[in-house]
Amino acid sequence: MTALDPRLLKDCELLGKFKLCHVLLMRDENYPWCVLVPDREDKVEIFELAKEDQSQLQLESNSLLEYLKSEFNADKMNVAALGNVVPQLHIHHIVRYKTDIAWPGPVWGAFPAKTYSEASLKKRKALLCQGFAKLGLGFQQK
Amino acid sequence: MTALDPRLLKDCELLGKFKLCHVLLMRDENYPWCVLVPDREDKVEIFELAKEDQSQLQLESNSLLEYLKSEFNADKMNVAALGNVVPQLHIHHIVRYKTDIAWPGPVWGAFPAKTYSEASLKKRKALLCQGFAKLGLGFQQK
Repeated sequence: MTALDPRLLKDCELLGKFKLCHVLLMRDENYPWCVLVPDREDKVEIFELAKEDQSQLQLESNSLLEYLKSEFNADKMNVAALGNVVPQLHIHHIVRYKTDIAWPGPVWGAFPAKTYSEASLKKRKALLCQGFAKLGLGFQQK
Repeated sequence: MTALDPRLLKDCELLGKFKLCHVLLMRDENYPWCVLVPDREDKVEIFELAKEDQSQLQLESNSLLEYLKSEFNADKMNVAALGNVVPQLHIHHIVRYKTDIAWPGPVWGAFPAKTYSEASLKKRKALLCQGFAKLGLGFQQK
């Protein structure tokens, strides 16, 4: 299994794994925000993945976007692979509301992360893991 | 053919079309920056596209990323579907350098667009259209 960059693990909770990607929750209660990290060594850009992994990433990413939009009643989903700070390939999936603090700007660098309470984090993780298990993507909880 | 949102046409030059997507150049010389707009009516989120269109978008997006990274010797590619301001589904493909003015932050809202000179814009468009024609994606110049 590919090691996750320590900076991703510092900012996120590891929830588990789909067939291809680790799935993490950003520790920022300002937005429901998940990150997919393909379990492949030394990948930086999406096009560096093998073709079948590109297809699997697309499936996992689009399923995750659709689930998050519905579960959290999002006004818009934001999806992005930036990696300017942490090069390990990772793709952000962010629930946006017209009422969130950064709207309509992007979230990165806009506001400091809002820490979840222990109870809120536990509840959020449980909800997501239950939802992920129903997506048909082979989710295995960490 | 789907009408392009006037706000996209205000900020971008329409270069042409791949099999699925219109391809535009952002009028911002700070970064080589292309935008793909699937030629499908009333799409806002990637997962709303038909499965075969999702696959075609992935192909066009990854081919474009690989070409731009090579052509402009990028340090990193940034790819994102945000759409908080312009809802019509569009996907940003941005060449980033460790020396660019917004690095390592995201480009949106960071700095005002730097206007291309007429000569620079013409040269950039010609280069891109030549490159796109070699990608095997059925590029048709506008």
